[in-house]
Amino acid sequence: MNVKVIAFDADDTLFINEPYFEETEKKFCGLMSHYLSAQSLSQELLKTQVDNLPLYGYGIKGYVLSMIETAIKVSDGTISTKGIQKITDLGKELIQKPIELLDGVEETLQSLQGKYKLVVATKGDLKDQQRKLHDSGLGPYFHHIEVMADKQEVNYEKLLARLEVKPEEFFMIGNSLKSDVLPVLNIGGYAVHVPFHTTWAHERIDHEIVHPNFYATEKITDVLPILLK
Amino acid sequence: MNVKVIAFDADDTLFINEPYFEETEKKFCGLMSHYLSAQSLSQELLKTQVDNLPLYGYGIKGYVLSMIETAIKVSDGTISTKGIQKITDLGKELIQKPIELLDGVEETLQSLQGKYKLVVATKGDLKDQQRKLHDSGLGPYFHHIEVMADKQEVNYEKLLARLEVKPEEFFMIGNSLKSDVLPVLNIGGYAVHVPFHTTWAHERIDHEIVHPNFYATEKITDVLPILLK
Repeated sequence: MNVKVIAFDADDTLFINEPYFEETEKKFCGLMSHYLSAQSLSQELLKTQVDNLPLYGYGIKGYVLSMIETAIKVSDGTISTKGIQKITDLGKELIQKPIELLDGVEETLQSLQGKYKLVVATKGDLKDQQRKLHDSGLGPYFHHIEVMADKQEVNYEKLLARLEVKPEEFFMIGNSLKSDVLPVLNIGGYAVHVPFHTTWAHERIDHEIVHPNFYATEKITDVLPILLK
Repeated sequence: MNVKVIAFDADDTLFINEPYFEETEKKFCGLMSHYLSAQSLSQELLKTQVDNLPLYGYGIKGYVLSMIETAIKVSDGTISTKGIQKITDLGKELIQKPIELLDGVEETLQSLQGKYKLVVATKGDLKDQQRKLHDSGLGPYFHHIEVMADKQEVNYEKLLARLEVKPEEFFMIGNSLKSDVLPVLNIGGYAVHVPFHTTWAHERIDHEIVHPNFYATEKITDVLPILLK
């Protein structure tokens, strides 16, 4: 390996994210419980979110707009204005959730610091991600924070061009096989999967990955023996 | 001058933006006309937008959420769900507005291309700005597109560090004195103001600028004699 740049996904790799969305969604389901079961509502919301991705992209604001759209749809327009306001309040609450670092993150960054160029490669709202990185206190470890509109091969290719590294010099660490692992392997980079206990339905894949540049780990500190040998 | 990088603001510098927001706001005022006069509603909306900036940042999705919040507030919760839906529809319409290049933009970029490193430095939603640049066909002129969470001095300092240029090598072109000119002059760069016929209330300043690194022009092609002499 001739790795020069190590990129970390942010949400559910460096700090907690999906559980906050799940908590919000549970409250949303509670709010709408007289219209639809939680399971059916979650399905409707996911459908609306995915349909809106080309327009809204990832992030909390698009999520809130999709909750509002879903609420109006499943209530057949009968949800109260108070209900809508509760949804926008849920969004503001979600934006302001505290940053909770995941186990081993600081230890990993400290050990790799100075030996590689460390960057963050994340999706989502620019403003939210910059705030979260700032509040996490992890900012000083990173040479660069890249908020990407999406994490497809073409987006990684642009990132590599911007960082002026070749695919074989690029090493990605993240919790999403779909977004952090597969596209990076496909363009010739290295990728480590560090699983998180919960994954957004839209990020799940249903096949196993076998690839010479792929490492499956249990926790983020497991990357250290790979990168420090 | 020893300028190496020329940065262009995007909205209302490269292509039309504010008139689309104004058109949307006019429709929003029409929708709410039985609650409040257009003038008072616009004031309420601006207040909500500015209050929400720390949470939502710039861009269309935050604008839509602020319209919904304003509508609920000024109607004292009596706006119909249909009304809320019309607001989210206005947002989707705004996201999909066609790109209309401003006069002289292509000529300016063609003349400067190859002589300087050209970049875009814009605020707003990451996804929206990337889509607009892509649809504009101007992408190939630019070495780099930077979507910034804000355009304060600290944001420009980060951009310069990322581009590895000194302030005196940086030349910014834009329609906002507040966002494109003042912070750049303050950190030691050069700035050109190319006015657009309309400016968002939050971007207006009420004093004249006198600075050795500042150029006031009438149209974007006026930068050519400054940069090609």
